Amino acid sequence: MSKKVLIIGGVAGGASAAARLRRLDEEAQIILFERGEYISFANCGLPYYLSGVIPERESLLVQTVRGMALRFNIDIRVNSEVTLIDREKKEVEVVTNDRTYRESYDFLILSPGAEPLRPPIEGIDSDNIFTLRNMEDVDRIKKYLVIEKPQKAAVIGGGYIGIEMAENLHHAGIKVTLIEAAEHILAPFDREMARIIEKVLIDQGVNLIVNDKVQRIKEGKVIELQSGEAVEAQSIVLSVGIKAETTLARAAGLAIGNSGGIKVDPSLRTSDPAIYAVGDAIEVEDLVNGSKALIPLAGPANKQGRIAADNICGRHSTFKGTQGTSIIKVFDFTAAATGNNERKLRQEGIPYVKSYTHSGSHAGYYPGSTELTIKLLFSPEDGKLLGAQIVGQKGVDKRIDVLATALRHGLTVYDLEELELAYAPPYSSAKDPVNMAGFVAANILRGDVKIMHWEELTLMPQEERILIDVRTAIEFRKGHIEGALNIPVDKLRKRIDEIPRDRKVIVYCKAGLRAYLACRILEQKGYEVYNISGGYDIYLADRH
Amino acid sequence: MSKKVLIIGGVAGGASAAARLRRLDEEAQIILFERGEYISFANCGLPYYLSGVIPERESLLVQTVRGMALRFNIDIRVNSEVTLIDREKKEVEVVTNDRTYRESYDFLILSPGAEPLRPPIEGIDSDNIFTLRNMEDVDRIKKYLVIEKPQKAAVIGGGYIGIEMAENLHHAGIKVTLIEAAEHILAPFDREMARIIEKVLIDQGVNLIVNDKVQRIKEGKVIELQSGEAVEAQSIVLSVGIKAETTLARAAGLAIGNSGGIKVDPSLRTSDPAIYAVGDAIEVEDLVNGSKALIPLAGPANKQGRIAADNICGRHSTFKGTQGTSIIKVFDFTAAATGNNERKLRQEGIPYVKSYTHSGSHAGYYPGSTELTIKLLFSPEDGKLLGAQIVGQKGVDKRIDVLATALRHGLTVYDLEELELAYAPPYSSAKDPVNMAGFVAANILRGDVKIMHWEELTLMPQEERILIDVRTAIEFRKGHIEGALNIPVDKLRKRIDEIPRDRKVIVYCKAGLRAYLACRILEQKGYEVYNISGGYDIYLADRH
Ligand SMILES: Cc1cc2nc3c(=O)[nH]c(=O)nc-3n(C[C@H](O)[C@H](O)[C@H](O)COP(=O)(O)OP(=O)(O)OC[C@H]3O[C@@H](n4cnc5c(N)ncnc54)[C@H](O)[C@@H]3O)c2cc1C
Ligand SMILES: Cc1cc2nc3c(=O)[nH]c(=O)nc-3n(C[C@H](O)[C@H](O)[C@H](O)COP(=O)(O)OP(=O)(O)OC[C@H]3O[C@@H](n4cnc5c(N)ncnc54)[C@H](O)[C@@H]3O)c2cc1C
Ligand SMILES: CC(C)(COP(=O)(O)OP(=O)(O)OC[C@H]1O[C@@H](n2cnc3c(N)ncnc32)[C@H](O)[C@@H]1OP(=O)(O)O)[C@@H](O)C(=O)NCCC(=O)NCCS
Ligand SMILES: CC(C)(COP(=O)(O)OP(=O)(O)OC[C@H]1O[C@@H](n2cnc3c(N)ncnc32)[C@H](O)[C@@H]1OP(=O)(O)O)[C@@H](O)C(=O)NCCC(=O)NCCS
Repeated sequence: MSKKVLIIGGVAGGASAAARLRRLDEEAQIILFERGEYISFANCGLPYYLSGVIPERESLLVQTVRGMALRFNIDIRVNSEVTLIDREKKEVEVVTNDRTYRESYDFLILSPGAEPLRPPIEGIDSDNIFTLRNMEDVDRIKKYLVIEKPQKAAVIGGGYIGIEMAENLHHAGIKVTLIEAAEHILAPFDREMARIIEKVLIDQGVNLIVNDKVQRIKEGKVIELQSGEAVEAQSIVLSVGIKAETTLARAAGLAIGNSGGIKVDPSLRTSDPAIYAVGDAIEVEDLVNGSKALIPLAGPANKQGRIAADNICGRHSTFKGTQGTSIIKVFDFTAAATGNNERKLRQEGIPYVKSYTHSGSHAGYYPGSTELTIKLLFSPEDGKLLGAQIVGQKGVDKRIDVLATALRHGLTVYDLEELELAYAPPYSSAKDPVNMAGFVAANILRGDVKIMHWEELTLMPQEERILIDVRTAIEFRKGHIEGALNIPVDKLRKRIDEIPRDRKVIVYCKAGLRAYLACRILEQKGYEVYNISGGYDIYLADRH
Repeated sequence: MSKKVLIIGGVAGGASAAARLRRLDEEAQIILFERGEYISFANCGLPYYLSGVIPERESLLVQTVRGMALRFNIDIRVNSEVTLIDREKKEVEVVTNDRTYRESYDFLILSPGAEPLRPPIEGIDSDNIFTLRNMEDVDRIKKYLVIEKPQKAAVIGGGYIGIEMAENLHHAGIKVTLIEAAEHILAPFDREMARIIEKVLIDQGVNLIVNDKVQRIKEGKVIELQSGEAVEAQSIVLSVGIKAETTLARAAGLAIGNSGGIKVDPSLRTSDPAIYAVGDAIEVEDLVNGSKALIPLAGPANKQGRIAADNICGRHSTFKGTQGTSIIKVFDFTAAATGNNERKLRQEGIPYVKSYTHSGSHAGYYPGSTELTIKLLFSPEDGKLLGAQIVGQKGVDKRIDVLATALRHGLTVYDLEELELAYAPPYSSAKDPVNMAGFVAANILRGDVKIMHWEELTLMPQEERILIDVRTAIEFRKGHIEGALNIPVDKLRKRIDEIPRDRKVIVYCKAGLRAYLACRILEQKGYEVYNISGGYDIYLADRH
């Protein structure tokens, strides 16, 4: 007897599971339920369609109901909401426009996704306040933009979707205010890295407000903030996060994790062996710290769909956890991260060391090179990579993917030193930025240089230390840290006697390289010397 | 007593070693000998300076003698050729314009590089026949181009430098003929992959001749080929390969490997414990097959310089071998490779399986995506990656670096399936091309699909097989393999009875995906069925 598999949710996880099921089992009966009108659409492309960067609505429909049904011989039922799972009878209840019925299953796959949060703020239900998750949402916003032609819009929430919305509304000619309640935008990043992107937004003309909470929204037009400030907008997009869609799972008594996602084992089976769950709705293991987490991303969702299908077809296939590799375009910049950030590591009590490097995206002598800033987080014991964050204009996606591969397989900063990456002048440098990040991190662990971070400097009594800026006199004049003594690195050997021997010597330059050279000289001359990792660049970024 | 280190060769390996030595040892006496006028220049940038893509000659000088001497307190002696190593006395002999002298050492580092081959072809010594290795060479060619304004040039040798020269001479407005003696250009690649780049060159207007040898050159103007063809050129660039610079080492009795490079141990020590050698002049271990090889690339040279310095300063640091990761820009295209190609694997008797995928550089619905072709070579036993080649317009460098990282750390095609790479529409797809290559390769190993390659098809008796083209009728009409029956994949289930059960069924589509779906259907219906890996695209590429 061929098996009967029902799938709830027809987009990233659900459609992938359906396609894979069919490839593995030509005989299975596969029914896909989707409560919306569309399956297999490109959620991730929605913001770009609003601005016209993606001009054709159709191109968002990666697969159509007809196309998918034909190719994979799948019974696809859109506008069909599953309202109940009857585990005892192995049936689900389905509600369509005109009827309610039951369908039985041998196996059930849940890929219901997540839904945008709507915090209980006064005035949040006005009809010019939008959230963005699916085709219906984007159609609604697009229609509003076309008909109402708002001049001003506000985006509440500075996460990935919020920033993409801000950028695309801006591209559509609308004056945008982006409001973030936390200290900085882009929660997967640490503050000083997020600051670089905040500056990009501001430079592009986005009115950015951080560290301020929305108190209430008056008539859908005026957003009142905790600070007392008021923001006017004719259209408001809410993207303050999402909530795993667990209504059905909870009602059916499936185990739900502390993180709020459906509990699954590594084969993606829920607490009911006939029911699998994938995508934004499940909790997964954080590869770095071992805790359970919600990582709502399309890559994992697609892969999980494939894994669930494998297991249903009798193959042993497991999801080994996630590292949260993510990336965002912000105007001409790109920000990307993998693994844990400082906040997370502290929270989990995992000891770490951090380092910064600034490198050219490719060889400086070949035109078009731009700078990228890499932050590495790694274990003080063995140098194992724990996290990475990169911001820059070009080549960010490449380096994060190399680091994501390294992190996933437990590589250390010593391994990064040795990676043999592709070099020709248009693409990289003989020492790729990833190698360079490895050198710098490994030098710290080997004890070749002591580092200090800006936040530590301020905690240090002035009289205990001397601060030396080893950049050129010209750079120094353009701006420096108060109280710093300027001794350009190339003059350090001659002027070394100016440096008192009884104090800690703190050295900085623009990026960290020249200060490192200075540290090596001073250390060997008997000084206790520290390099400010990331240099003046990180100082400036953090204070923009 | 501080140690005295002499370095021979002042560019990639030599200058890197010098800088690192100084960082590790502020007291060491370091003398750098360079027979040319310049140190630390960007060899890799030279071709681009010829065309003006790199406009400033100065930008090729990554470090100057003055700059480097000042920053690193190094005694730099240019126009100084070391002509002899006296190992007994631990001295070298140095010849400058006006004198010959000796200098003693505690340690010696050899980084003399390599020199362009000049095969003994009749007429090769004409003064419009150039090779390109250093600043002096590039100045010579540039001067010739400016004064003589050649209309036609020929490049002999279709390796990396030859192709870069062809492209840049073309950019300079010169009609270029590129002559390659082997069956295809770009030796690190296999034929069908190199063919894609050959087509790029031809489409751009380069007159490409492969599989033809230069017999003699008449008056520096007419190149006579084995085929009888004659190529006219007012300027000729020879780039038929390089030879490790081992003159000094041989004369000093240092061990030379079978590959023709200086023998070193993993700490880069030569057969004389006081002498280290790095860069193009040494032989290194090929990480994939364990044999000794010459891998003349800047990344390894720089890293080796650093490692030699480490060891001289009493640190144990090793070079773990190379995988030959390399990349080249060819007009709008990029070709990149890592690990071994088929030729090499066969030569070393290493069993392998190969697979091809064609993927978009990023999500198809986001504008600007272009196709990239990935060839993977992997072990039939455990799926371990043995080599990868990629050709395409965008995102090639990213994928080769991920694969290079994977290969270096022994990852398998199963690991590639699970890599969590950064996805947002401008950068990739939810299943990155590397994941996709992993799926396809792993499916082969798991036995989910049998594959066949075009070259095998032709060896199979016609009556034993039926060839099915599962593309659409429109695609089929535009071109297909003779004798193929067209059954579009979406109609396969209905038309399955048209396929005879007593023959092997060979299926193909454009890229391999639809044919894979067809294979899954047919296999489960009891057919013996094969997918032609890489599809019609690879067929066309190989026959351009
Ligand atoms: C605007 C936007 C931009 C994004 N950008 C990126 C990005 O750049 N990179 C990235 O990795 N990820 C991105 N994501 C996240 C990514 O889209 C999700 O992680 C992924 O779609 C999750 O897949 P899923 O199958 O779990 O859920 P979904 O793709 O949301 O599919 C769930 C489907 O289930 C249906 N459903 C729910 N309950 C029921 C029910 N009871 N009955 C029937 N149907 C039901 C829903 O209608 C929905 O269509 C983005 C998301 C959005 C909204
Ligand atoms: C045109 C061109 C393009 C290239 N493009 C790339 C690329 O895109 N990517 C890549 O990875 N690699 C590229 N390379 C290769 C790369 O430049 C070399 O691998 C690298 O420079 C090798 O470093 P090395 O120190 O061994 O030799 P070199 O950098 O060549 O330095 C050797 C130096 O030693 C000097 N010398 C030799 N003998 C003596 C002596 N007896 N006394 C004093 N001095 C001596 C020589 O004059 C020379 O300057 C390219 C090379 C060329 C020529
Ligand atoms: C110019 C040249 C001499 C520089 O050598 P170098 O000083 O070793 O290399 P870099 O300038 O890249 O600096 C790397 C060093 O700075 C350190 N560094 C880089 N960025 C840093 C930062 N932000 N903070 C602290 N340290 C940093 C690295 O750790 C490394 O030091 P280490 O080796 O002691 O670990 C050498 O690269 C050269 O000659 N290049 C041109 C020739 C060439 O390579 N040609 C072939 C390719 S075209
Ligand atoms: C459209 C959709 C249903 C396709 O699912 P799919 O068929 O599993 O995925 P793809 O079309 O990428 O094809 C992948 C399959 O083809 C195979 N394949 C790809 N290229 C191939 C080639 N050249 N040769 C042979 N096989 C190939 C892969 O091995 C894989 O099969 P497998 O899983 O059995 O190993 C699904 O991806 C989807 O719904 N996407 C849109 C929704 C979404 O993801 N949204 C969030 C991101 S915006």
